[in-house]
Amino acid sequence: MKNKAEMPRRLGIIAGGGRLPVKVAAAARAAGRAVFIVGLEGFADPAVLAPWPHEMRRLGAAARIIAALRDHGCQDLVMIGPVRRPSLLDLRPDAEGAKLLARIGRAAFAGDDGLLAAVIRVLTEEGFAVIGAQEIMREAVAPGGVLTNVTPDAQAMTDIKRGIQVARLLGAADVGQGCVVQQGLVLAVEAIEGTDAMLARAGALRRDGVGGVLVKLVKPNQDKRADLPTIGPDTVRHAVAAGLRGLAFEAQATILADREACLAVANAAGLFLLGLDPETLS
Amino acid sequence: MKNKAEMPRRLGIIAGGGRLPVKVAAAARAAGRAVFIVGLEGFADPAVLAPWPHEMRRLGAAARIIAALRDHGCQDLVMIGPVRRPSLLDLRPDAEGAKLLARIGRAAFAGDDGLLAAVIRVLTEEGFAVIGAQEIMREAVAPGGVLTNVTPDAQAMTDIKRGIQVARLLGAADVGQGCVVQQGLVLAVEAIEGTDAMLARAGALRRDGVGGVLVKLVKPNQDKRADLPTIGPDTVRHAVAAGLRGLAFEAQATILADREACLAVANAAGLFLLGLDPETLS
Repeated sequence: MKNKAEMPRRLGIIAGGGRLPVKVAAAARAAGRAVFIVGLEGFADPAVLAPWPHEMRRLGAAARIIAALRDHGCQDLVMIGPVRRPSLLDLRPDAEGAKLLARIGRAAFAGDDGLLAAVIRVLTEEGFAVIGAQEIMREAVAPGGVLTNVTPDAQAMTDIKRGIQVARLLGAADVGQGCVVQQGLVLAVEAIEGTDAMLARAGALRRDGVGGVLVKLVKPNQDKRADLPTIGPDTVRHAVAAGLRGLAFEAQATILADREACLAVANAAGLFLLGLDPETLS
Repeated sequence: MKNKAEMPRRLGIIAGGGRLPVKVAAAARAAGRAVFIVGLEGFADPAVLAPWPHEMRRLGAAARIIAALRDHGCQDLVMIGPVRRPSLLDLRPDAEGAKLLARIGRAAFAGDDGLLAAVIRVLTEEGFAVIGAQEIMREAVAPGGVLTNVTPDAQAMTDIKRGIQVARLLGAADVGQGCVVQQGLVLAVEAIEGTDAMLARAGALRRDGVGGVLVKLVKPNQDKRADLPTIGPDTVRHAVAAGLRGLAFEAQATILADREACLAVANAAGLFLLGLDPETLS
């Protein structure tokens, strides 16, 4: 039997929507770690979490979330899965939550970077080690280079360059991570509506001729332990429906959820997936 | 009878959608100027132009547009009314149009500023004096200060500041002119979908609690002779429907179409209209 000091630390997962939280859980368990999940009500899908040790809590119920993670002996914490960002009023903080909010500061509500950084700071002060989901499921991190059969041509590379410029600006202002560019024209820019809604809009706004590209980048100032850009098979399907020719994203800093399915959808439709070298982005 | 040198110069209007082109025509005629309108097919409404001397032409039919304006003795030119920006393929330029495109250069298609600046340059080289619609209808130019019964409160001013920051960045990148901010959160950012579509989206994405604001600004590098931000009664109605508390725009550089109707709609719904002093924007 292993000495306690050698036992892998128990992992807590604060779960938003989708299947990524249980993918992180499965990757942690495969590596010999015990896990406990707190699903955020209204975002996490109880049916997805059902097979795992978990409880559901309101986002504003900070005291209960922290207590649950402590009671289950979690030392490391991952926050993963989309959470629709609440207004202060939606939040209905419990007493502990109100104290935490005061520590976070209203100013943090001006952008996601500030808010997530403040949440990570407070969780760290509470004694947890917040880590990125990519540290648990390293195989889900997007590699660099062209991953598909199709390679972007000169027009696509021009559109990608313009997309990088716009996504960088938006990201620096903590507005969003992505945009769609077609033939040099910025069709759509992502704020809080999410990538899928932006892709639907870009599809409706597209021009005749060669299709556009989706560019999705980490925000320059964001803490990479939360809210990494994520691309999954549905993202690729929506890109196909929007008439795009490909997706470009930051290598080593994007979660490619279900890579095989992403590649299968992209190759079947003739789209490219391109991991951009972060060194060449700025 | 006046000496020819004293006759006001005949005004040509290249018309996109909406009623603004005929408002410019009416203002010019009221000032004693003769006018001739070229309506762009697919954008200008023939029923709106019907009472005025005009002809309809394709956007790509540059030779015919220029010939029509020359034949009717136009010396000054106004370009006004929304035109959905075409792809190079949509354009189907005539022989003259292809030559003009070559003069404009493909690079101009990377953004509206570049394209409009190039179109203005070419029209100037062809001997026309391109002027801003605001020089013809000075009373439609938005003044500074609060125009409504309601004045923005501290939260609204904070949202407006954030909106100015984001709109400035977007404008500098030649992406768009506007955004919606609620409680510090950027709900939506405008690319080519237009303000009304962005407002509809912002309405669907809004949070509980105090409503947001629309901020619309001139792009820092745009030529003010074309594509000035425009706010009309429909803009205000859409802002009401999106749950906004007000609209902020750049004084002296925004066209407030049908000001009385804008103010009536805003005052009835308790929204503010605020003309921002350009000096304080950067």
